[in-house]
Amino acid sequence: MFFASDNGGPVHPQIMTRLAQGNEGHAMPYGKDAIMDEVRAAIRTAFEAPEAAVYLVATGTAANALALACYTQPWQTIFCATTSHINQDECNAPEFYAGAAKLTVIDTDDRMTPDALRRAIEQQADGNVHGAQRGPVSITQVTERGTVHSLDELHALSAVAKDYGLPLHLDGARFANAMVALGCTPAEMTWKAGVDVVSFGGTKNGCMGVEAVVFFDPAKAWEFELRRKRGAHLFSKHRFLSAQMAGYMQDDLYVTMAQQANENAAYLADGLRKAGATFLHSPDANMIFASWPRGVHQKMKDAGAQYYIWNGTLEGEDSEEHIGARLVCDWSIGKDAIDQFLSHF
Amino acid sequence: MFFASDNGGPVHPQIMTRLAQGNEGHAMPYGKDAIMDEVRAAIRTAFEAPEAAVYLVATGTAANALALACYTQPWQTIFCATTSHINQDECNAPEFYAGAAKLTVIDTDDRMTPDALRRAIEQQADGNVHGAQRGPVSITQVTERGTVHSLDELHALSAVAKDYGLPLHLDGARFANAMVALGCTPAEMTWKAGVDVVSFGGTKNGCMGVEAVVFFDPAKAWEFELRRKRGAHLFSKHRFLSAQMAGYMQDDLYVTMAQQANENAAYLADGLRKAGATFLHSPDANMIFASWPRGVHQKMKDAGAQYYIWNGTLEGEDSEEHIGARLVCDWSIGKDAIDQFLSHF
Amino acid sequence: MFFASDNGGPVHPQIMTRLAQGNEGHAMPYGKDAIMDEVRAAIRTAFEAPEAAVYLVATGTAANALALACYTQPWQTIFCATTSHINQDECNAPEFYAGAAKLTVIDTDDRMTPDALRRAIEQQADGNVHGAQRGPVSITQVTERGTVHSLDELHALSAVAKDYGLPLHLDGARFANAMVALGCTPAEMTWKAGVDVVSFGGTKNGCMGVEAVVFFDPAKAWEFELRRKRGAHLFSKHRFLSAQMAGYMQDDLYVTMAQQANENAAYLADGLRKAGATFLHSPDANMIFASWPRGVHQKMKDAGAQYYIWNGTLEGEDSEEHIGARLVCDWSIGKDAIDQFLSHF
Amino acid sequence: MFFASDNGGPVHPQIMTRLAQGNEGHAMPYGKDAIMDEVRAAIRTAFEAPEAAVYLVATGTAANALALACYTQPWQTIFCATTSHINQDECNAPEFYAGAAKLTVIDTDDRMTPDALRRAIEQQADGNVHGAQRGPVSITQVTERGTVHSLDELHALSAVAKDYGLPLHLDGARFANAMVALGCTPAEMTWKAGVDVVSFGGTKNGCMGVEAVVFFDPAKAWEFELRRKRGAHLFSKHRFLSAQMAGYMQDDLYVTMAQQANENAAYLADGLRKAGATFLHSPDANMIFASWPRGVHQKMKDAGAQYYIWNGTLEGEDSEEHIGARLVCDWSIGKDAIDQFLSHF
Repeated sequence: MFFASDNGGPVHPQIMTRLAQGNEGHAMPYGKDAIMDEVRAAIRTAFEAPEAAVYLVATGTAANALALACYTQPWQTIFCATTSHINQDECNAPEFYAGAAKLTVIDTDDRMTPDALRRAIEQQADGNVHGAQRGPVSITQVTERGTVHSLDELHALSAVAKDYGLPLHLDGARFANAMVALGCTPAEMTWKAGVDVVSFGGTKNGCMGVEAVVFFDPAKAWEFELRRKRGAHLFSKHRFLSAQMAGYMQDDLYVTMAQQANENAAYLADGLRKAGATFLHSPDANMIFASWPRGVHQKMKDAGAQYYIWNGTLEGEDSEEHIGARLVCDWSIGKDAIDQFLSHF
Repeated sequence: MFFASDNGGPVHPQIMTRLAQGNEGHAMPYGKDAIMDEVRAAIRTAFEAPEAAVYLVATGTAANALALACYTQPWQTIFCATTSHINQDECNAPEFYAGAAKLTVIDTDDRMTPDALRRAIEQQADGNVHGAQRGPVSITQVTERGTVHSLDELHALSAVAKDYGLPLHLDGARFANAMVALGCTPAEMTWKAGVDVVSFGGTKNGCMGVEAVVFFDPAKAWEFELRRKRGAHLFSKHRFLSAQMAGYMQDDLYVTMAQQANENAAYLADGLRKAGATFLHSPDANMIFASWPRGVHQKMKDAGAQYYIWNGTLEGEDSEEHIGARLVCDWSIGKDAIDQFLSHF
Repeated sequence: MFFASDNGGPVHPQIMTRLAQGNEGHAMPYGKDAIMDEVRAAIRTAFEAPEAAVYLVATGTAANALALACYTQPWQTIFCATTSHINQDECNAPEFYAGAAKLTVIDTDDRMTPDALRRAIEQQADGNVHGAQRGPVSITQVTERGTVHSLDELHALSAVAKDYGLPLHLDGARFANAMVALGCTPAEMTWKAGVDVVSFGGTKNGCMGVEAVVFFDPAKAWEFELRRKRGAHLFSKHRFLSAQMAGYMQDDLYVTMAQQANENAAYLADGLRKAGATFLHSPDANMIFASWPRGVHQKMKDAGAQYYIWNGTLEGEDSEEHIGARLVCDWSIGKDAIDQFLSHF
Repeated sequence: MFFASDNGGPVHPQIMTRLAQGNEGHAMPYGKDAIMDEVRAAIRTAFEAPEAAVYLVATGTAANALALACYTQPWQTIFCATTSHINQDECNAPEFYAGAAKLTVIDTDDRMTPDALRRAIEQQADGNVHGAQRGPVSITQVTERGTVHSLDELHALSAVAKDYGLPLHLDGARFANAMVALGCTPAEMTWKAGVDVVSFGGTKNGCMGVEAVVFFDPAKAWEFELRRKRGAHLFSKHRFLSAQMAGYMQDDLYVTMAQQANENAAYLADGLRKAGATFLHSPDANMIFASWPRGVHQKMKDAGAQYYIWNGTLEGEDSEEHIGARLVCDWSIGKDAIDQFLSHF
């Protein structure tokens, strides 16, 4: 009954196998391994982007911070939702990598509205040196509250960014989960919607520790390589990043695992709904924010269930009588564990 | 015949096994995994340092840059050899992580002499704001030219640092290789010699991608944790770093592999010596810098041997007739491959 | 009719005289000049702080950014009002000087409420590495909207900061104007209210370009000196900063000029009120935010009046029929100019 | 008998007069003052560079660090002489402003030789991410040891920089002194010799605290403005920087003062030569490095002479019997003071 995060589960066997295969013999280091050629081709194909520049790093924060740094000057500000990972969960890594740039947070919701984004951009300096200058827009998909932007919503946000000539970054730590939720292609959720660079997550979706950064315009490629090395994120034994990503793309495993994770979450949400839980956010993909009585919570903890209590004072319910909870499903959660969990209501 | 680097070889089976075992079930993320407890204990035992703070990162550059940043103010300078990895091979990562600090390079050799170190420290500002202030001393062991500081040399350098109250960092990307070469214990090569923090390398010695940073005084522990997260080097699925390091420490595998690597290099060096090669540096551990006729080089390349030509113009021989070469052995190089290589002379 | 800013007016003759006197003969550079001894003593006396560390820089942004950097770790966040100068008018200088730290803006008003401050602090990470850590609180007095915190308000904000052990910075670009408005002493508005470090402004109040940074605890003195030099803000001919500040403190000129400025603004505000203008913020010191018909605005511009139209869409009135305006008075604005201005209503 | 530095003397009366004139009435802040228009025109005329972008800051370190930052990526290294001000006297300001870039010091002399520069560039990474990438070349003219590069020497260094496509910065803190020593025009010593950006010093040559940064290609103009503001170096009462520079350029006062300073130094050097002093460097402009008996030194100190003892152990003579001294003349040193000084030999 592990619902604490999708970073607590096991690596998929197909990926473990690729790691074992990748371990045979010698390979050139620092991204010159042959497996990386396969990865590059697979991702370009999946994204229908034959010119894309594709790089691997081991953490989602590295992917976000390095991708954004390529599009942010130190005197600029990055527009993002208050709840975004880059704002709340990266300990100033984006600011660090972007040379002390600022983040301007937009507090409408976990999904910024186009109007709020436009207002925030308008308020920011343009053509005078006093305030931070306008920098990129960063959208998180799946959001940190488990909701998914529709393609229309992405297009609307993208349109605002384009109105001001601002680059668009997509934090896709749960990219595949969102894609499955929308029933769309990688291209539809990225460059066809105006995204310039995407953090394409693997770690939370069954990999060991690998994320791809995909630039649809390869102009930033060399800068990214230098920033990655300077950030100490270039692996010498890079083939083991490549092997993970190769296994992840092979036979669309990334889609399969996201489907399983989303189905698990839907099954869990359905059970919670029937059990009378209140939902704090719409459980669009593989994360659920819900609330239930403190007594139920105690029973679940006693039974060994693992999940985070959410800061109900701020966003959910955390009263004398109720707690707010975050539950995340990855591909590996079995229906048995969910049934067992639900039985404690 | 792969001698290009010790980062090109396979991961040792014992470590692969630990990775597979570590993959079972769920684990708490971000370093809260149970395997990390085992790692911490194993390293404290190996270093005879029950209070040491122990952390894992995935790259040697991250280990160095983060460790040094904890001991460097942005207005200070780090004293190191010109040939050091932090100066020549990290694309300004140490400067980046230390908030734009400086490196003062000491050019006596790949092993700084105590006198040269003292001179460099004396030349640096003390008590006036004009120049960079004195910061930590960083020693590389094994050096980037394959030589090993004797314990006496380490003590002498350390004594200079202590004379000025400066912290001492050891870049031990090839820590075990040096230890084996000296026949000493981890403690003798570190805190007993005055080292405050060590980058204890695993990647080049049969791991997949893991380095430990060991602080003998745990006062910097929390700062390190924040710097690691901010640098995007905190793994969510941290158990896979832990599993590697656990396998590496288990039954002193790190010593066994270093012994194999050093023996391989000694066997190769012996053969090269007999074949008439000239040594550019003393092959003390698992790296060899040697020179031979261009014709021999061509034969070896034709036969598929992989090694780097060294910049002979600067440091070795790279004339019309001779080339300078760097050859590195890891644990996995077989004697057959070495014999085959030597047969081309 | 120059109401654009209090940085557009002339330097007071008493300060010009001190500059001329300071120009005689030779003086040791970099803050070792004898006039600085006089300045240090004068400020310590004025602030009743015999141990205070006192430094001079030439710009208000330098004072703020350097003062804050001494109290902010790169992984922390600074709590401030959305409207604060450090957030909106310093082009990321605070982030730059604090090593890529974050600013957390509190949007209740130009004066943060203690509750809003407490809420913002509570939301920020404490004891886990994921979010930015809690850093200093920065208050602006006079605020950027021309209002003044009462001593009670300062104490209440300070109490919140102290509850969490956070340092307190006061941006006093218009320090003397606030002090005069409150009828209090420098000590009452700073260390007696829990302020740890203050940017004590001179430039906007009749100096040429000088601000003092006053640390009530001198523990940060040496760090400040290094940060100032590294920021390129240490003047070689420092005596000319000293001379300005000496003239500013002499016979409490700083108070006299602030009184004049505040009286000028009060006289102007009174006239505006009678003329029917609407006030967007309470004109507590020497700045006025008011609104009037577009036709009146046009007449004033035609007559040569200089002031900024404020972004009425966001904060004031800027409709078809009305404009929002910011008017600032310094010591030098004559009543004649004000009368002339008012005559255009 | 003040020979400690050319930053200890008085501001020239012509400049004080311009400051007083500049103080009349109101002026728009932040560089929009009318005097800046005059300055821009005067500098463009003096440099025969009608398109040049011209900016003012208050310190030489700010001029250097900001100018270099516009031409340096954080992963690059700046090539400079070991003795350069940016390396030894700016407390890591260049690294700070350039986002944690590196400095590669070239130790041939206070004037780098073209061969040594070429060697240093060749040793630096090109096209691989491991080392710092090649960045700008920075030359100091007058050097920190008082010598002056001939135009041929400048052209030869510039030719090396251009061979590698690297930008060229000139640290001209004593620009006018060098120009007078060479008998050349500003253009000949800058863009005609391949210089891309120059720090054109005023402070050490009779101003209060002002330096111009002149970009011969205005493409960096906007970036410089943002960097200046973000560095907290944009003066609100900018007219007082403008007034100084206007007075400095008026009737070529900058040339006149440099002539006086150089003549003073030549007169002093001549006397020292006759008195038997040994010269440690060629006194080409207004700085003298010389050595004399310790007994003489004591007499001079007793008589109140002010100059720095130079670190003879490293570069000059500082034996039991002799000291090394640095003496600097500005425009204001009278022949009487020099005669008095020489009388103590």
